[in-house]
Amino acid sequence: MSKDYRDMWKGLGLNIDAHDGLLSVLTNAYTNIYLSQKERPKGMSYFDFVISEVHGLRIEELLNAKAQGKKIIGTFCIFVPEELILAVDGVCIGLCSGADVGSDSAETHIPRNTCALIKSFIGFKLSGICPYVETADLIVGETTCDGKKKAYEAFDKITGKVYVMEVPNKKSESDMRLWKQEIRQFAEKLQEVASRQITLEKLREAVRVVNEKRAALQRLSKLRGSAPAPISGLDALLINQISFFDDPVRFTAKLNELCDELELRVKEGRGVAPAGVPRIMIAGSPMAIPNWKLHAVIEAAGAVVVGEESCVGERNYRTLLDDKFDSVDQALEMIAERYLTIDCACFTPNDDRLDNIISMAGKLRADGVIHYSLLFCTIYMMESYKVQTSLKEKEIPFLRIETDYSSEDMGQLKTRVEAFLEMIKGA
Amino acid sequence: MSKDYRDMWKGLGLNIDAHDGLLSVLTNAYTNIYLSQKERPKGMSYFDFVISEVHGLRIEELLNAKAQGKKIIGTFCIFVPEELILAVDGVCIGLCSGADVGSDSAETHIPRNTCALIKSFIGFKLSGICPYVETADLIVGETTCDGKKKAYEAFDKITGKVYVMEVPNKKSESDMRLWKQEIRQFAEKLQEVASRQITLEKLREAVRVVNEKRAALQRLSKLRGSAPAPISGLDALLINQISFFDDPVRFTAKLNELCDELELRVKEGRGVAPAGVPRIMIAGSPMAIPNWKLHAVIEAAGAVVVGEESCVGERNYRTLLDDKFDSVDQALEMIAERYLTIDCACFTPNDDRLDNIISMAGKLRADGVIHYSLLFCTIYMMESYKVQTSLKEKEIPFLRIETDYSSEDMGQLKTRVEAFLEMIKGA
Repeated sequence: MSKDYRDMWKGLGLNIDAHDGLLSVLTNAYTNIYLSQKERPKGMSYFDFVISEVHGLRIEELLNAKAQGKKIIGTFCIFVPEELILAVDGVCIGLCSGADVGSDSAETHIPRNTCALIKSFIGFKLSGICPYVETADLIVGETTCDGKKKAYEAFDKITGKVYVMEVPNKKSESDMRLWKQEIRQFAEKLQEVASRQITLEKLREAVRVVNEKRAALQRLSKLRGSAPAPISGLDALLINQISFFDDPVRFTAKLNELCDELELRVKEGRGVAPAGVPRIMIAGSPMAIPNWKLHAVIEAAGAVVVGEESCVGERNYRTLLDDKFDSVDQALEMIAERYLTIDCACFTPNDDRLDNIISMAGKLRADGVIHYSLLFCTIYMMESYKVQTSLKEKEIPFLRIETDYSSEDMGQLKTRVEAFLEMIKGA
Repeated sequence: MSKDYRDMWKGLGLNIDAHDGLLSVLTNAYTNIYLSQKERPKGMSYFDFVISEVHGLRIEELLNAKAQGKKIIGTFCIFVPEELILAVDGVCIGLCSGADVGSDSAETHIPRNTCALIKSFIGFKLSGICPYVETADLIVGETTCDGKKKAYEAFDKITGKVYVMEVPNKKSESDMRLWKQEIRQFAEKLQEVASRQITLEKLREAVRVVNEKRAALQRLSKLRGSAPAPISGLDALLINQISFFDDPVRFTAKLNELCDELELRVKEGRGVAPAGVPRIMIAGSPMAIPNWKLHAVIEAAGAVVVGEESCVGERNYRTLLDDKFDSVDQALEMIAERYLTIDCACFTPNDDRLDNIISMAGKLRADGVIHYSLLFCTIYMMESYKVQTSLKEKEIPFLRIETDYSSEDMGQLKTRVEAFLEMIKGA
């Protein structure tokens, strides 16, 4: 970190000792997993810097934004439209949820059998080590799974600042009507919280910013389809994770710089791993910082991860927003429509996702798909059986992994991944 | 069973050997748990008969109904309006889901970490031992939890006859609008399946029948509030379970006869257990036949169960349907409104349920509440923490139980329940 932020953290009410402990663990993990990689693109140095300042400089930026009257809106889900948050001059950020922290405290509010991500965001808050949740003016939840839907009730009791958007269970006309109403209400809520009006001009600018961010992420994804892959899955995952925390304009510029470099690599036929190594695509539950476990195992075993069919990945940037609107109302309709194209496993049926997985695996030239579910992530675990069937029909190798944030199953994970890679190499 | 039904079962495509095995296990369990009870009301003999014929005479009745052109509609959830099914001359039945059957086969379609009820309905079907699923013309699912929502996709692939109603996640005006549309669509679906029109006359009669059934169940519930309790929790649970399988008119008549007998007992101050034994109320997940595990443990320990705050219990019959409608459209609106009063843990928030639990515990003179969740039943497990807090404020003793259909944890369950009862006695 570039300077001493202790006073800032104290001001946010963090538990300084516990927070020091967390940072030290994270720094070690990052050094071991990330900085030890070979053939890293030069452009990754920006993202290394961002991660080193994720609890430092970035929080200072958020506090400066607050001092200018801007509101900080925390979310856990890609159904929460960043466009609307930017249109009220707000800052959209993810909240800490990727590490096994404060489970014991969390389990006084929610069951032991809760997915690691949910347990983590409650554990982080109760342990006093997430500066994002302390900085946030509003936390926006949604109803995408039973675990989150009910955990937000507890989280609101703890934080007093949770607002829940209802994501429906199907995609019928009735659902679209309901969802459009949710989008309108959320726009009203934001205007109230920020004491600012959403104007057509603001909204156009916001849509442009978010579309450009998504376009840059699409560009990165496309480059990963080259063989040999010009960037590791670990680095690409990190970039996707950072897309939820960083300033979107700066992030987009830096990501495009990196993509320029990767384009050059592709032209020269240079990659992070030899051309023949197995190319693996991940599908399933989201991976929040610092959840790098599965990618680390796969790439340590000599394969390369070429894509994430995940909310922290393709699901977040697959679709740009149509920017041909002439009024705020029309824009809200189009925002609702764009977000309801998301192929989250919360919908029944959700067959688009099966097609999207097949199509992605083709474009990325994946040799196999690993379906990743967090333990107790019912919707993705349930849907993995359909994914398996649909990949089998296309003769694409498939492996189902169910895990959490602990390191207890690392040995087993390693063995299963290595066997899968051997199977692919033998095919 | 009154006669040999093997040909009927063969005709339904059941696996006769496996089905014989199931019946023998069930008969033994029933004899041990039910017939060994002391001071049983005479009126229970009807329900003993029903249970002994649940795969025999009742299935024959359903097949006779089918021969007359009536349709059999299977459900797993109290959000599916029986009134509409009766209005197209249909028969509404529950499907087998209360025993640990066919788990290994089920786990080829759904994850191991799925609640026992869901695993059971898939396991029963795959094992070929549920005559109800084979008899059903339509199976109506809903979106009340992630597990069922996604499992119905698999169940439809297996059975080819699943229709899913969308239960929303909240109870706002938008949700009511969506739910009313679901009710209208379901009415259309039923008319199409049954090739019959829903008329005002048919609907009035259907509402009368279902209201009378619910009123009889309410009467039973009220009688259980007497001290000493005139009927065991096991017997009352059985009656609630049978309410999903039996002919509603016959069931209501027989239940009212039983209630007459119980009224006499109350007048005479006679009970199934001495007046001073702990009175326990159960809250939480539904208990399908033959899931009698928790009641059996509690009553074997000398307490009496006085109520079930559950879908197989109070949640099913708490509210009658207003029958003052003058058109089918108006009736559909009123049906939608009645069903959206249900305090299922699928809603966020669901604070009515907390009030209902406190009120029920008072009326039933409960000395303590045991919150029962099926393992991996996320919504009820999550909500149990709020229930705990709200009961604590009222100084009502609380115990959280999470279990499945296996007998592996019987020892632990017994110990925890006995300790809870000792605590109550000592208070």
